[in-house]
Amino acid sequence: MQRLKGMSVNEMLNSIARIEERIRLNLSDIQKILLTTDGSMTRTLEVLTGRPVMIITKVRTPINADNDLANELKIKVGEEANYRVVYLKDSDSDRALIFARSWTPVMRLSGVIKKDLTSTDMPIGKILTKHKLETRREVTSIELLEAEVMLKRAFKIDSELMLSRFYNIIHESKILIRINEVFPLSSFR
Amino acid sequence: MQRLKGMSVNEMLNSIARIEERIRLNLSDIQKILLTTDGSMTRTLEVLTGRPVMIITKVRTPINADNDLANELKIKVGEEANYRVVYLKDSDSDRALIFARSWTPVMRLSGVIKKDLTSTDMPIGKILTKHKLETRREVTSIELLEAEVMLKRAFKIDSELMLSRFYNIIHESKILIRINEVFPLSSFR
Repeated sequence: MQRLKGMSVNEMLNSIARIEERIRLNLSDIQKILLTTDGSMTRTLEVLTGRPVMIITKVRTPINADNDLANELKIKVGEEANYRVVYLKDSDSDRALIFARSWTPVMRLSGVIKKDLTSTDMPIGKILTKHKLETRREVTSIELLEAEVMLKRAFKIDSELMLSRFYNIIHESKILIRINEVFPLSSFR
Repeated sequence: MQRLKGMSVNEMLNSIARIEERIRLNLSDIQKILLTTDGSMTRTLEVLTGRPVMIITKVRTPINADNDLANELKIKVGEEANYRVVYLKDSDSDRALIFARSWTPVMRLSGVIKKDLTSTDMPIGKILTKHKLETRREVTSIELLEAEVMLKRAFKIDSELMLSRFYNIIHESKILIRINEVFPLSSFR
């Protein structure tokens, strides 16, 4: 049995406090909820915008796990993972609301879910709801970043600080998907 | 296999729009998130207040399901459920942040979880995390209420409109807990 351990609420609050100290600014309540929630991100965004969130897939490709990824996903080195880069965006705008990357161990996917995850533009929260999957989510890090080129393009900005988190969606005690979500410090304020 | 169907995001947004029309006021983003989230409520409250949330148990008693409850929980009439009424509150204040009622079919609980759910004051979100339970949450209604006596006492108010939702926490395709959460329209604004 592998051990999977997410951050406690206290550890997440400490990460947020360290970020606030560095930027000498308090994060907004919405930013804090987006960084710490164990609920569906799509649902939260749709409730905030009042509209369906669209997924624009930028990259979708099978990769073979290197040492680091194998360790993160608890799979063997060389095993196949599906790598996806998407923008979660409002139907009204070209600009991403959230930039998200995900890694899915392909061996752990059953047929129908595999199809939805690897060949459609459906948000992950909706895929889980559609298939009535019972899961839990564990946040593993909350960080502040400098925007690099992919992020500058996604958010149509020149340079800005970004809020980022990694979390795992766990199903049947195994990581079904590892997700990294990023948004600009100026969003959701 | 029983059918369990929660509200779609669209249906939830419609319920919120109807409430906003009745009160001629927009709900805040935080209120909308609290009414619709499929994540842990305790976690959200702790992130918002920056402090641990305390549970004050007001009622904890076994009851036998009548027709309505049996139907809601998908159990037999007369089967035992654990009924709990709690205040979720900030350690600094006497006033509840959230008033919550829950109904748990006792037959569906395994030993350790049963003990935590029926004899401790641990928040449900923490019990699920502690036991690494994989679940999904389905919101079944979002409503506006007049405060009655139990709510007036919980929030230390004379008279006020309340926001309320019911949702089910589902585990192994069965309702593990049915929850009703209520808070004043003036909270989380």
